[in-house]
Amino acid sequence: MRVLVNISYQGSQFLGFQIQQNGRTVQQQFERILKRMHKHHVRIQATSRTDRGVHAIQQYFHFDSELNISEQQWKYVMNRALPDDVYVKDVRFVDEAFHCRYDCVGKSYRYKVYQSPHKDPFQSGLKTYIPDTLDIDKMDRAAQLFIGTHDFTGFCSQKTEIESKVRTLYNSRIKKTTDGFDYIVTGSGFLYNMVRVLMAFLIEVGKGKREPKEVPYLLELKDRNQIPFTAPAEGLYLEKIYFTSEELKNDYGHDIEIHQKNSSKNI
Amino acid sequence: MRVLVNISYQGSQFLGFQIQQNGRTVQQQFERILKRMHKHHVRIQATSRTDRGVHAIQQYFHFDSELNISEQQWKYVMNRALPDDVYVKDVRFVDEAFHCRYDCVGKSYRYKVYQSPHKDPFQSGLKTYIPDTLDIDKMDRAAQLFIGTHDFTGFCSQKTEIESKVRTLYNSRIKKTTDGFDYIVTGSGFLYNMVRVLMAFLIEVGKGKREPKEVPYLLELKDRNQIPFTAPAEGLYLEKIYFTSEELKNDYGHDIEIHQKNSSKNI
Repeated sequence: MRVLVNISYQGSQFLGFQIQQNGRTVQQQFERILKRMHKHHVRIQATSRTDRGVHAIQQYFHFDSELNISEQQWKYVMNRALPDDVYVKDVRFVDEAFHCRYDCVGKSYRYKVYQSPHKDPFQSGLKTYIPDTLDIDKMDRAAQLFIGTHDFTGFCSQKTEIESKVRTLYNSRIKKTTDGFDYIVTGSGFLYNMVRVLMAFLIEVGKGKREPKEVPYLLELKDRNQIPFTAPAEGLYLEKIYFTSEELKNDYGHDIEIHQKNSSKNI
Repeated sequence: MRVLVNISYQGSQFLGFQIQQNGRTVQQQFERILKRMHKHHVRIQATSRTDRGVHAIQQYFHFDSELNISEQQWKYVMNRALPDDVYVKDVRFVDEAFHCRYDCVGKSYRYKVYQSPHKDPFQSGLKTYIPDTLDIDKMDRAAQLFIGTHDFTGFCSQKTEIESKVRTLYNSRIKKTTDGFDYIVTGSGFLYNMVRVLMAFLIEVGKGKREPKEVPYLLELKDRNQIPFTAPAEGLYLEKIYFTSEELKNDYGHDIEIHQKNSSKNI
């Protein structure tokens, strides 16, 4: 039986999703519970391997089990055994052909920033603090210029090993919030550090150090050295996973072209 | 020069205020900075030694310094060197007769609870989760019965070594919030674990397992075994420190009797 699990977690106290030799990771929490239940190791496959400190409002993983446990029971037993910073929202059985990573056709991220004359220790780990005055409208204009299909070589970690750096963004907007702004970005997939590099660039635009009109030029240039910053992990939330083109079209219009089965690597 | 520092901190990642052999504490953060600046050890004296996981919206400490640094500069240099979960709100010079602990005439705590059909990992460490339906009005009626001067032997840790367990509560109320309730309690001083034991008792009242009318009897009985629970630290916030009777009277009416210079021990 293939079991699909919809989870959310606060990333502050995790070294990321993916299991590591040492340290607390989200994968480790689940595999420990599953091993205890199955009496053997059970590997989980996640849609996205979020980095250290990155949060997830929605994230999926799947695993195969021979146990005779209902969907509701799976949710109950896992939540009972999990620490407070991870939560199983939903469990359902899926076809064994389904794969969390390969069947993902899109993802949304949200990057949260608060602005204030002084730091707020209660936002620590949950939002990024930027004291500078920013031109939010200008940032939004620049953000929208990333919508479409582009080679994002200039806007990802230079350590990215994947061959094609072409991705399609269906949405890329800055929205004001009560205490700052959110950057909301939806795409076919994201390269390593891509959202955090885009965010860092947009903050430079907000400060007046960059101009929206540079965007097409920088996309063309494909040179990461032109965009030297990476915004911190703590403001970043994986917000929504799309497994069907219909869902994406519902959210972003029926005229969008869906790029299915691209290699949607972790951020 | 005696320097008085007004701080706030998120307690989740601290083993409490007071310095320990091993582990991250609030006191350690400040003494490390002060040692670097003074080239010798500088001990700080706090109003309240909050426990592991307890937060502070307002907390004070003082220290003596021979350095020629202005109040504004102190604030600036400390904030620059502090991690994101502690913040210096204000610094001022005080008379050398002033003492943070002994001159405290009252404190307010706030205990935050959220209620929801399911746990929210983003509230983890910041509010306590209680899924049960609670009778908030009944809890508030019980809470108010603690106002006044009582022997709180039955409502503190049995490890409390202090002799007199008589304290005066100026306020003790339950207030509804958008997602649950807060317990707000102000007193001359608090015994070890006292707010968390009061909270645990009031939650029992909310569940219908205890009645408000038991309060006078339990105060009289002075038996902690009658109140077996202690609410978790994560919902607890030290919210306000009173150094003058006038402030207390302003907040709680001019007819209250102020109990000055009691030994206001940490919670």
